[in-house]
Amino acid sequence: MIIVMRHGATQDDINKVIDLIKLKGREVHLSEGESHTIVGAVGEKVIDPREFELLDGVKEVIKISSSYKLASRIFQQEDTIIEVNGVKFGGGYTGMIAGPCTIENEEQIFECARLLSQSGVKIIRGGAFKPRTSPYSFQGLGEEGLKLIRAAADKYNLAVTSEVMEISQIPLFIKYVDILQVGARNMQNFNLLRELSRVNKPVIIKRGLSATINEWLMAAEYILSGTNREVILCERGIRTFEVATRNTLDLCAIPVVKKMSHLPIIVDPSHGTGLRDKVVPMSLASVAAGCDGLIIEVHNKPECALCDGAQSLYPEQFDVLFNKLKKLAPVVDKTMN
Amino acid sequence: MIIVMRHGATQDDINKVIDLIKLKGREVHLSEGESHTIVGAVGEKVIDPREFELLDGVKEVIKISSSYKLASRIFQQEDTIIEVNGVKFGGGYTGMIAGPCTIENEEQIFECARLLSQSGVKIIRGGAFKPRTSPYSFQGLGEEGLKLIRAAADKYNLAVTSEVMEISQIPLFIKYVDILQVGARNMQNFNLLRELSRVNKPVIIKRGLSATINEWLMAAEYILSGTNREVILCERGIRTFEVATRNTLDLCAIPVVKKMSHLPIIVDPSHGTGLRDKVVPMSLASVAAGCDGLIIEVHNKPECALCDGAQSLYPEQFDVLFNKLKKLAPVVDKTMN
Amino acid sequence: MIIVMRHGATQDDINKVIDLIKLKGREVHLSEGESHTIVGAVGEKVIDPREFELLDGVKEVIKISSSYKLASRIFQQEDTIIEVNGVKFGGGYTGMIAGPCTIENEEQIFECARLLSQSGVKIIRGGAFKPRTSPYSFQGLGEEGLKLIRAAADKYNLAVTSEVMEISQIPLFIKYVDILQVGARNMQNFNLLRELSRVNKPVIIKRGLSATINEWLMAAEYILSGTNREVILCERGIRTFEVATRNTLDLCAIPVVKKMSHLPIIVDPSHGTGLRDKVVPMSLASVAAGCDGLIIEVHNKPECALCDGAQSLYPEQFDVLFNKLKKLAPVVDKTMN
Amino acid sequence: MIIVMRHGATQDDINKVIDLIKLKGREVHLSEGESHTIVGAVGEKVIDPREFELLDGVKEVIKISSSYKLASRIFQQEDTIIEVNGVKFGGGYTGMIAGPCTIENEEQIFECARLLSQSGVKIIRGGAFKPRTSPYSFQGLGEEGLKLIRAAADKYNLAVTSEVMEISQIPLFIKYVDILQVGARNMQNFNLLRELSRVNKPVIIKRGLSATINEWLMAAEYILSGTNREVILCERGIRTFEVATRNTLDLCAIPVVKKMSHLPIIVDPSHGTGLRDKVVPMSLASVAAGCDGLIIEVHNKPECALCDGAQSLYPEQFDVLFNKLKKLAPVVDKTMN
Repeated sequence: MIIVMRHGATQDDINKVIDLIKLKGREVHLSEGESHTIVGAVGEKVIDPREFELLDGVKEVIKISSSYKLASRIFQQEDTIIEVNGVKFGGGYTGMIAGPCTIENEEQIFECARLLSQSGVKIIRGGAFKPRTSPYSFQGLGEEGLKLIRAAADKYNLAVTSEVMEISQIPLFIKYVDILQVGARNMQNFNLLRELSRVNKPVIIKRGLSATINEWLMAAEYILSGTNREVILCERGIRTFEVATRNTLDLCAIPVVKKMSHLPIIVDPSHGTGLRDKVVPMSLASVAAGCDGLIIEVHNKPECALCDGAQSLYPEQFDVLFNKLKKLAPVVDKTMN
Repeated sequence: MIIVMRHGATQDDINKVIDLIKLKGREVHLSEGESHTIVGAVGEKVIDPREFELLDGVKEVIKISSSYKLASRIFQQEDTIIEVNGVKFGGGYTGMIAGPCTIENEEQIFECARLLSQSGVKIIRGGAFKPRTSPYSFQGLGEEGLKLIRAAADKYNLAVTSEVMEISQIPLFIKYVDILQVGARNMQNFNLLRELSRVNKPVIIKRGLSATINEWLMAAEYILSGTNREVILCERGIRTFEVATRNTLDLCAIPVVKKMSHLPIIVDPSHGTGLRDKVVPMSLASVAAGCDGLIIEVHNKPECALCDGAQSLYPEQFDVLFNKLKKLAPVVDKTMN
Repeated sequence: MIIVMRHGATQDDINKVIDLIKLKGREVHLSEGESHTIVGAVGEKVIDPREFELLDGVKEVIKISSSYKLASRIFQQEDTIIEVNGVKFGGGYTGMIAGPCTIENEEQIFECARLLSQSGVKIIRGGAFKPRTSPYSFQGLGEEGLKLIRAAADKYNLAVTSEVMEISQIPLFIKYVDILQVGARNMQNFNLLRELSRVNKPVIIKRGLSATINEWLMAAEYILSGTNREVILCERGIRTFEVATRNTLDLCAIPVVKKMSHLPIIVDPSHGTGLRDKVVPMSLASVAAGCDGLIIEVHNKPECALCDGAQSLYPEQFDVLFNKLKKLAPVVDKTMN
Repeated sequence: MIIVMRHGATQDDINKVIDLIKLKGREVHLSEGESHTIVGAVGEKVIDPREFELLDGVKEVIKISSSYKLASRIFQQEDTIIEVNGVKFGGGYTGMIAGPCTIENEEQIFECARLLSQSGVKIIRGGAFKPRTSPYSFQGLGEEGLKLIRAAADKYNLAVTSEVMEISQIPLFIKYVDILQVGARNMQNFNLLRELSRVNKPVIIKRGLSATINEWLMAAEYILSGTNREVILCERGIRTFEVATRNTLDLCAIPVVKKMSHLPIIVDPSHGTGLRDKVVPMSLASVAAGCDGLIIEVHNKPECALCDGAQSLYPEQFDVLFNKLKKLAPVVDKTMN
């Protein structure tokens, strides 16, 4: 941490800063410039910059050590590549995940699986436990849903991903699912993250609606801090003042994350935009920006979907899009798979 | 729901809207204006406005039924007043809660309890389980902490409030605590909210960092949807572009909530500003704006606090503030208690 | 405008709404639903929805007529295509504009012009009047700068675009420049916009840092409301809570604008990201999302630039990018020119 | 400026940073810590932190010198007190300004002046040139309006404030008006600000919708950089994701500004909330938070106002509020005048 003293700070002001650094168990590192004195607080002990901001004569306090370690590019230079059912995410690979928002019934999920498999998809998504803003909305089929998607996936040789909402559901997910998802609203449910650090299956962690990229990487760090090494970050839009779209998809997060971290980053253009006709251009843009994967909502009959039909693609629309993405990826030195 | 057709929409466009409304199980309600045709979709079945936005000829789609019922002023006209240890929140009353961010050890929590009790405080706060952005930060004393705060509170005739983070912790909180808190990061942890709807103790629900007032009231609705009737809303700052303060305290939420809901609303100026010297003016402003309570961080030795010392008041600072608030409250027809 | 009455609103409440509509010179349009009465206010007279929100018994008030007309797709179905120096923006065409942030001196601007011309660029950008946050920063060369960029452009057969900041500068711009730019900070400088509506040269209007897409189209409407028909919208990032990038580039604005308006929309990835290494992926993403043009900062020696060097590409970097974009555009049925 | 090198940065990386600092004309100031090397760039020459962010081995770059000088508390310790028509803003004084949004006609403005004068108001506001989002809305009476408000003010011994939108309007304002206002949309119209630095009348500068407090103080610096010493800052709400209110009134800006600057800060709760019933609690909150003044919209017949009637108080409502504020101010050691 660096404490920059105001122009005109007294020796007494500086001494108080030094005393507090020592009280907090860090080493002092003083350097007097022409117009400002700068005091460094060296060491590993956690200290709160705001305590120094409150002292007289202090101009600014700057934290310098990022708190994530295992998630950073410094810890690991080369890209983490995660492979599930032959599909790779990271490095030169852009993986595809598709499926309905929610598992509704046997016919729907089998039909979705059949259609997606025909388009060449290898990993299906589908919600069994749904986080709903209203307590009166449909909350998902629960375990029954997980059984159905597993059966449908097995029939068509697909892997499965679904969202886990609660620690007590983890054993079910280990049984039925290949990739676990943490939803945006749970990105800072630290107890859940810690339990997932002991699971040995890949975890997709969605960015919270108002999470900075730094906080998102800290959430990944929670999962990495156990034995789990397979974390996939998923950009799905942030909340801003703009109301024309459900969220503002922050595609610049892709190059930012790729510089800071070795973890793969995928994009969810369905939740990120909230409207079917925006999903196609935003999928193309995501791949052009260098993302490592996409997770797209596709429904066999979107107009009858129980949830989020408006942001689900028609199967034939998806098929055209997937082919376009395969053509686009090589332009940016990626392979869509 | 109301669907406004574009100027120039064809009869065919209108028919498709009508068909979709019927498919979704709602009644159609047509009215043709001079420049726009307006189609109402009457009934209780849940439908997603975006499905209509995607149809040709549709200009705008407007949802009209708010999803919260039990939390609304229409359901209950008069203010809910919640009383704990003789302190009232709501109606003409502004209640005070104070205490350290975290329970650190026996000496600290007993000393805080003693000092606050001397200032006339009747409800103490203190965290036992801490939601920390970094997995490497201090995570709280857990049950041991709850035991300590209970003992300290009993000695000085105080009630206790503390944050519950996980469903599995609820039995502990029922045992040791008088008011349960749900933190901002858990505001949409719907599984936790549902469990709390069966607890018969008051619950403070903090506003999420990027939660609209509507979503916040929906979270309250989750808790009210069981047998629990005692929910206190707590404004604690939202995330905006401004970086001069930790969060932007949205004090206008006070009159907005009071118009929409009968539930008491309190303010947490400590987390809402993040700096001790802003806590005093924002506490005064909150009471002037008509809030039903405050929850303020006070520590016997802020400069030694393990967590959030920079936003904790000194006991003597708090004492002066509490007296000022008692003088200010009557100007806005409130009684500080 | 539509006024939705609360469930339980009295006849008296409804009558007051009707009276106010009539007082405001609009026709009343009443329809009583099962749970809500809906009152329409038909006509062209401007009324403020908030006046109705304040009345008893009113649940919600919805404005339905968008205020922009000439900028909307309803007014003109087919894309506006703007051509400058043989480069087309709009329809199936994606136009390229490139150049330094600021015109610094003769050598720099001629060297930039030479290098860009070599890469196939036909329109050069460069600031002569600079909007600077600090009164103590370099404010641009003024008319001298415009003369220099005109001379350099003429030598290499380029067209010129530059930012106009003030009404009194317009005559200078008409003399030296082919496309006028309105900066983000002036997007709602309505007096300036009105003057530009009488200029018969294309105008690029940048989106304000916190402007909704609707407000941005209203700003375009100001320019269109005179005799000027050539407006190009330019997305350049909005302000959000995220601090990892200078702004949040809102690429979903591209499909949103293209649905609402016939005007071409281009992207400025240099200001939109603020860092050179993010400009390349965001340029690719913009074209993949279907934008009608790009405006990119390129400097012959970025590390010596007087302004924004950190977001300026090296000429060779730009050259590689431009070629990549030409390969990418056809995948989304566009021609880069 | 301070450049923090990454853990593991090479000597070569450090040398390149040093070379760039020297190239930019600043002195180097090196200090090697245990885990990070820190390089200071000392001197007054303007440099862009982002140029260093792009270099290898650089972890973070921190600007330390704030760019505003004349506006800062360091330049002037004691509060600036501005007095107009006997009303003081700043120091221990909270001044009141009130009046209609727009000057509509002779009868209206004279009636407003009479009523406000009766309540003890000494400074009247009223718009003559209106910044309107739509080119088709009422744009104000122009000079005719300024004449009317001057005459009304003279009759009732009031001072006048009104918004100036354009450099060419300044002479008119000097003739008719006592305090000039710069609107939120013009906060970064730097040409206008520079002209106002040569005017010798107080200027109220409203905070831009998405302006940080730092940018706002920089805008004040523009005005102070000439001969004008009388700048009043006006908080009027910022743009956030919340849609329940027109803007989010950031009252914590009051203590933040008062710590950083000696300039008086007032609040406009009318634009800050957009609804009459929120104006009263937010006015009380502003004074409790320690603001130096209020500017409130009051109209003799709000339901007939041409503009913003929904946020205008009734004269009798204002009268009650003003009296309440006079009782509240002494609780926070202020005098309402």
